[in-house]
Amino acid sequence: MPNIDPDRLLSDLRHLRSIGAQGKGVVRPAFSAKDMEARRWLQAKYQEAGLEASIDGVGNVIGRSKKPGKALLVGSHSDTQPTGGWLDGALGVIYALEVARALAADKATAGLPLDVVSLQDEEARFVGCLGSRSLTGGLTPAMEEGARDKDGVPMADALRQAGLAGVPRERLSRERYAGFVEAHIEQGPTLEDTAKRIGVVTGIVGLRGIRFTFRGQQNHAGTTMMKTRRDASAALYELAHRINTEFPKAAAERTVWTMGRLRVEPNATSIVPGYADLDLQFRDASEEPLERLEKIVERIVAEMNARGGVKIEAERSRAPIPPAKMDDGLRAHLEAAAEQHAPGRWMRLPSGAFHDAGIISAVLPSAMLFIPSIGGISHDFAEDSRDDDIVLGCRVLADAVVSALKEIH
Amino acid sequence: MPNIDPDRLLSDLRHLRSIGAQGKGVVRPAFSAKDMEARRWLQAKYQEAGLEASIDGVGNVIGRSKKPGKALLVGSHSDTQPTGGWLDGALGVIYALEVARALAADKATAGLPLDVVSLQDEEARFVGCLGSRSLTGGLTPAMEEGARDKDGVPMADALRQAGLAGVPRERLSRERYAGFVEAHIEQGPTLEDTAKRIGVVTGIVGLRGIRFTFRGQQNHAGTTMMKTRRDASAALYELAHRINTEFPKAAAERTVWTMGRLRVEPNATSIVPGYADLDLQFRDASEEPLERLEKIVERIVAEMNARGGVKIEAERSRAPIPPAKMDDGLRAHLEAAAEQHAPGRWMRLPSGAFHDAGIISAVLPSAMLFIPSIGGISHDFAEDSRDDDIVLGCRVLADAVVSALKEIH
Repeated sequence: MPNIDPDRLLSDLRHLRSIGAQGKGVVRPAFSAKDMEARRWLQAKYQEAGLEASIDGVGNVIGRSKKPGKALLVGSHSDTQPTGGWLDGALGVIYALEVARALAADKATAGLPLDVVSLQDEEARFVGCLGSRSLTGGLTPAMEEGARDKDGVPMADALRQAGLAGVPRERLSRERYAGFVEAHIEQGPTLEDTAKRIGVVTGIVGLRGIRFTFRGQQNHAGTTMMKTRRDASAALYELAHRINTEFPKAAAERTVWTMGRLRVEPNATSIVPGYADLDLQFRDASEEPLERLEKIVERIVAEMNARGGVKIEAERSRAPIPPAKMDDGLRAHLEAAAEQHAPGRWMRLPSGAFHDAGIISAVLPSAMLFIPSIGGISHDFAEDSRDDDIVLGCRVLADAVVSALKEIH
Repeated sequence: MPNIDPDRLLSDLRHLRSIGAQGKGVVRPAFSAKDMEARRWLQAKYQEAGLEASIDGVGNVIGRSKKPGKALLVGSHSDTQPTGGWLDGALGVIYALEVARALAADKATAGLPLDVVSLQDEEARFVGCLGSRSLTGGLTPAMEEGARDKDGVPMADALRQAGLAGVPRERLSRERYAGFVEAHIEQGPTLEDTAKRIGVVTGIVGLRGIRFTFRGQQNHAGTTMMKTRRDASAALYELAHRINTEFPKAAAERTVWTMGRLRVEPNATSIVPGYADLDLQFRDASEEPLERLEKIVERIVAEMNARGGVKIEAERSRAPIPPAKMDDGLRAHLEAAAEQHAPGRWMRLPSGAFHDAGIISAVLPSAMLFIPSIGGISHDFAEDSRDDDIVLGCRVLADAVVSALKEIH
């Protein structure tokens, strides 16, 4: 079995953290200067590891093994949230690099074909899971055309600025790949709360996004009587609070929903806002609760529009993501390796967070491994994991990859 | 009676509009480069009109008559909202300049002492009515110390950048002044709806501001179960919607309230927000409804805090402004001039908007004149008034100022 190098692994993770570091966190959103710097660094690291490395037209960094035969693809994403943690995505990217190096260093495994990848824009600056969507053929021109970040920057401008305009985009071929494996921090408290060190993912929750726009009349906050106002912010508060009040009646046990991004214009204390918009995101492991919630949204919007005043529109803010099941065969390899390295201290669990593996599972058998997040905290500068958990996770991944590849070859 | 020059009046108004123009509107917030450019232009215009002109340490432009005896002070403010209209404040400032010129040009009035002023930051970039507060001694160190604009810029930095650090601040002396008169657009639809051309203000509504802060826990929008969330945005939506639901039960007929400025952090679709803040502003012509509303706010905040989860704090976002009555004597001069120039087409009305005259009335007899706003629209790029109403308003103001000054002298 391959020997991963804990010092090299942690050192490379920390170097990646340094690119875009802000305090304990990292600010490296997709296509930013820091994101592209990290991608060029990864490309060089892939080459050092003996892989053929390139950055494709949406920013995916791909390192290809020169060995023949069906390969496994291993990796995650290296873009971050606007104010992200240091391990979200980065962990799985550096794991893949370390596993590739460990395989190459051992004669028993040096012949196994392992490709590695750092996917682009998993965190939805423009299109959630842009990189894996593009690789699997699921990125439509319509998704790209209107794509802008929250500051209004069009995706095409960001691509051009990153030097990616006109660069070819790769596709995953089923002929080349036997499957995809992604390691990630849990981003929730389940492993920590149950004193487990490894999670093997059974499936990934589906996700839908709706953007509401509220169009009223901007006016003076002193002279416009309440009766004649068409206040976009008041409509936003009502809609959001009604969603928070009515969703619990139709949600399943693990359904979650969030309205964490909004805009009110002109956003001044003494002005009745004439415009607002708000994002609603909701997730569940099955489609039925998502359908029920969407019907509630439609009803509330229709009721509020029937009253007149502010005009509310609701449209999908992103392509819906169906719940995704992980591959039983790959999962068995992860479970065997977990039991070997952490006997009795691993568990199966669903992923409440979405991941690129949820996209890639539509075209390739896919599997996921989790390590614990301290306090369950993620998407925050405070996000962290214990060094020994980080090292253990990489060992489990390396062994699982080797046993899966040996089964194929 | 003095002859105002309609072409010169409209031409100067349009020149002031050009400083910071954006489309039909004006972007000239207090202490911005454009605001200071406008103030230096006004200073030069005051000097051309034979006045001693200076800019004081908070940016007030003051033009002093060299004539002896008790003077009237006439003016308004030349700063604008973040996206403001062209007449809000500017009208009263250019009226004052034109009246001063008209008085000087006529031997019968050239000896009357008339001072003019463009006040600073009426629109509350830092401290609402900063200029008039400073002139009347109502600007406390505490108000200034914590003052930041909505982008977090400290007021002290803005003063320094405008070249005003250490510049002396003027005070209005009761020995010099018999009163203050401010002309302004109505910023509401009452005059237009009743086909009146002049409004004489009976009083100015009082205003209170509360800033709410919501402190929860930032986390991942997929892995954090609803039961364990401390979502700052959800608390904001609930509080705001409850205020909008409960205030109507305790409000008076013309009470208004607005929650038009808010911030959610980090304001991303896939993150449960850990922090939010929200401004509530409420106004009425008497204190009783304002007191009742403040009690409702206290009760809702206490109820929500008692539930635990997100911690809500409520504090005054600005110094409260008590309702202000206009001076009967000065008002009589405005009414007589209005009846002469627009017989039967003027009315008395309260001001739903706040004005510097509301601050200055605490130390000097004060009065206000309104002209109609087209469509009642203000605090918007579309804000406008008819040219003939603009000219008529200046004639009424000039005659009222002369008759008031003649009564004194």
